[in-house]
Amino acid sequence: MSRKSKGCDAERELIHIFWQTNDWAACRVAGSGSIKYPAPDIIAASRTKRLAIECKACKGNSQYFDKKEIIELQQFAHKTNAEAIIAVRFNQEQWHFFMPAELDETNKHFVITREHLQNRGKLFKELTQQAQE
Amino acid sequence: MSRKSKGCDAERELIHIFWQTNDWAACRVAGSGSIKYPAPDIIAASRTKRLAIECKACKGNSQYFDKKEIIELQQFAHKTNAEAIIAVRFNQEQWHFFMPAELDETNKHFVITREHLQNRGKLFKELTQQAQE
Repeated sequence: MSRKSKGCDAERELIHIFWQTNDWAACRVAGSGSIKYPAPDIIAASRTKRLAIECKACKGNSQYFDKKEIIELQQFAHKTNAEAIIAVRFNQEQWHFFMPAELDETNKHFVITREHLQNRGKLFKELTQQAQE
Repeated sequence: MSRKSKGCDAERELIHIFWQTNDWAACRVAGSGSIKYPAPDIIAASRTKRLAIECKACKGNSQYFDKKEIIELQQFAHKTNAEAIIAVRFNQEQWHFFMPAELDETNKHFVITREHLQNRGKLFKELTQQAQE
């Protein structure tokens, strides 16, 4: 399976989780990563909250993101009054949701490691419940 | 050129118009029309307004929409607190933007005809300026 279609599978999996709730809708963005305008992988929204999401399923213990990818996510989120969220699912873990400030920074990348799951990020329920408060 | 790729071209054209403004971002939704969840063709948003858009370029004088298509657009818009908008560009005309209630209804379809452009719908500038008020 190509890297691109693995990415799409992760996106579809996450979209399905949003639609299983009563209050959220979500959709994949076409051409994310290849079009000339900044675009997240997924847009999710309820009546009261909007999320612009970059989404990765990770087989190893560290998931890296190009700095440009995260900066463009933040730009898109700012322009549309949405929250920028990085969604990562490590093998045998649930999806975890991070704000950009929760990622570690290297020279060229932002990174989230498996050991951070203990004390950073939110689970899906926490992410979406917060919106209803 | 296939019907599908013509549709994509119309969507890309409209997205470009949103990005040419300072205040709006827009993106195409992947798999619109083929995925199992309701999804618009385009999502556009500024800091203060969100639009869920069904989008067609029309060579004739009447553009028909399946009722299901428009009803799902309204459902998606309601769920995400966005405005449901139907965008149509007839040949040699600018894009016009309609609310569902501005479409005429037949047995199986909603329809907008070229002659309605005089007294229904908004131009892009009217649609997007309103958002800033």
